[in-house]
Amino acid sequence: MDLTEDELIAAVVRVLSGAGPEVRVGAGDDAAVMSVGEGAELVLTTDTLVEGVHFDLELTSARDLGAKAVTASVSDIAAMAASPRAAVCALVLPPDVEGSWVMELMGGMRSACDEYALWLVGGDLSRGPALTIAVTVTGEVAPGRAITRSGARPDDAVVVTGALGGAAAGLRAAREGNASAATLLRAHFRPVARVGEAATLARHGATAMIDISDGLALDLVRLCAASRVGVRLEVAEVPIAEGATVDDALEGGEDYELIAAMPQDSVERAGAELRETFGVPLTIVGHLEGSGALTAVDRDGSGAPLQPRGWDHFAR
Amino acid sequence: MDLTEDELIAAVVRVLSGAGPEVRVGAGDDAAVMSVGEGAELVLTTDTLVEGVHFDLELTSARDLGAKAVTASVSDIAAMAASPRAAVCALVLPPDVEGSWVMELMGGMRSACDEYALWLVGGDLSRGPALTIAVTVTGEVAPGRAITRSGARPDDAVVVTGALGGAAAGLRAAREGNASAATLLRAHFRPVARVGEAATLARHGATAMIDISDGLALDLVRLCAASRVGVRLEVAEVPIAEGATVDDALEGGEDYELIAAMPQDSVERAGAELRETFGVPLTIVGHLEGSGALTAVDRDGSGAPLQPRGWDHFAR
Repeated sequence: MDLTEDELIAAVVRVLSGAGPEVRVGAGDDAAVMSVGEGAELVLTTDTLVEGVHFDLELTSARDLGAKAVTASVSDIAAMAASPRAAVCALVLPPDVEGSWVMELMGGMRSACDEYALWLVGGDLSRGPALTIAVTVTGEVAPGRAITRSGARPDDAVVVTGALGGAAAGLRAAREGNASAATLLRAHFRPVARVGEAATLARHGATAMIDISDGLALDLVRLCAASRVGVRLEVAEVPIAEGATVDDALEGGEDYELIAAMPQDSVERAGAELRETFGVPLTIVGHLEGSGALTAVDRDGSGAPLQPRGWDHFAR
Repeated sequence: MDLTEDELIAAVVRVLSGAGPEVRVGAGDDAAVMSVGEGAELVLTTDTLVEGVHFDLELTSARDLGAKAVTASVSDIAAMAASPRAAVCALVLPPDVEGSWVMELMGGMRSACDEYALWLVGGDLSRGPALTIAVTVTGEVAPGRAITRSGARPDDAVVVTGALGGAAAGLRAAREGNASAATLLRAHFRPVARVGEAATLARHGATAMIDISDGLALDLVRLCAASRVGVRLEVAEVPIAEGATVDDALEGGEDYELIAAMPQDSVERAGAELRETFGVPLTIVGHLEGSGALTAVDRDGSGAPLQPRGWDHFAR
């Protein structure tokens, strides 16, 4: 492929533009939003895990994999400040997969669906050369209340939930066979989607949100591009999971924490509610700027261009 | 795999049972149906095409493939007597796929979405070893008006729309390089989903419906199993596409015509409306029976067990 993931997405989004008035948010955000009847909008997203690209069957259990496949899509619904409602999964199964393994996978999917209170209502099974799990989740949000990537304003604070880099460090621990790194392993194999946290941030005035699936640097740059703003990211302020590195936090991906933009004076109350209700910290990691410049500010105060490096599925 | 496709689906459906009251139709039908707000129910289905299993890149164009991927899922929405509204696609792309090919594929998807008046609102791109296209379509139906596979009654007539076997014969023509078989090639590469036809059959009292994705024999047996009825299929009455064989019609699959059960005395008026409005014939091919026996009646009047042979993705 001659294009990066984001270049191809941009090209595809151009082909898909021009949707009707009932499409409130089309291709290019965490999820699409459509008007349906009165009182609610439908939110729709799909996410795929491919063997050898997103997971290694030697390292993950079928249950964890099923749960993670659902969680990744639920996280996209959360990033719109919506509530997940139903899921369907499309499975591609190589010939050597046992029926009992598929049942374990479905059990993990159902368990994640129970956790986030949505229903797994159907699916599709196909034969194919590589195990592939595509989960589509629908959600619901009050009309006009979805938070997109594109509503951020200059001078908004940039906040992140939780701590970052745990998933990348957990994958490294799993590859090294380090079973004592239980918290990191859990961060990688059983990540949590921030559904309630996202709704709380929206209630406190979040202007834009995105979930961290491909790393803070890349996903923050995507939010800035959609909102046509710049950012000064204070690298020293980024909350790093215990056992993880700065690079894990900036470029690791799959943490499924949230990046939000919100007015500076709302952060304290939002953070207090997140801590009390969910036990999850909220941290200011930078500020947006009207200039459009993307800057990573180091501990010593020196600035350098923020590199949108991260989990590009086409580069690996 | 130790199980057939239908055995594995049955096992998965057992794991997924026990959904909440807002799930009107869960796993195991053409599509799921959920309550959302007032005035409408949400219909949801997903369908996957895998290179080397469902299509051959040597034979199909990117545009036809994109259109067919959308049509296959729209056909599942149609079989519930619902209207398609929005689609998302999850693409897995091998490294050697060009960006321009992906654009052609998306163009084909968009063209099918235009044809059936739904919006392609998002998607997901992944790297992987085999080209895989999973399309999820949402639809809408008036509350309680979805037609499932399970509502058929003994003594209902079994009807099919259009002519069968064209897709299988078209695939054969493509493999033989027979470019003169334009109608058959079109049946295979650009099938039509019977959206308006399904709504018409529902209005005329259809009690159960299923689309023919895996062949008349297999899909009819699925409808009978879901409705707990038997059937006498009159093989000589099955409408066969010009250039196709009886086997193509019974076991070929991918015709995306509809099988419906409906009261005998409704068939004539339903058929007249289908012919006038859509130019599509409606043919009685048999009758349901309370006994549960599945019988294929031959031209000479002799009966034999109806074999649920067809497109089993796990047997190939």
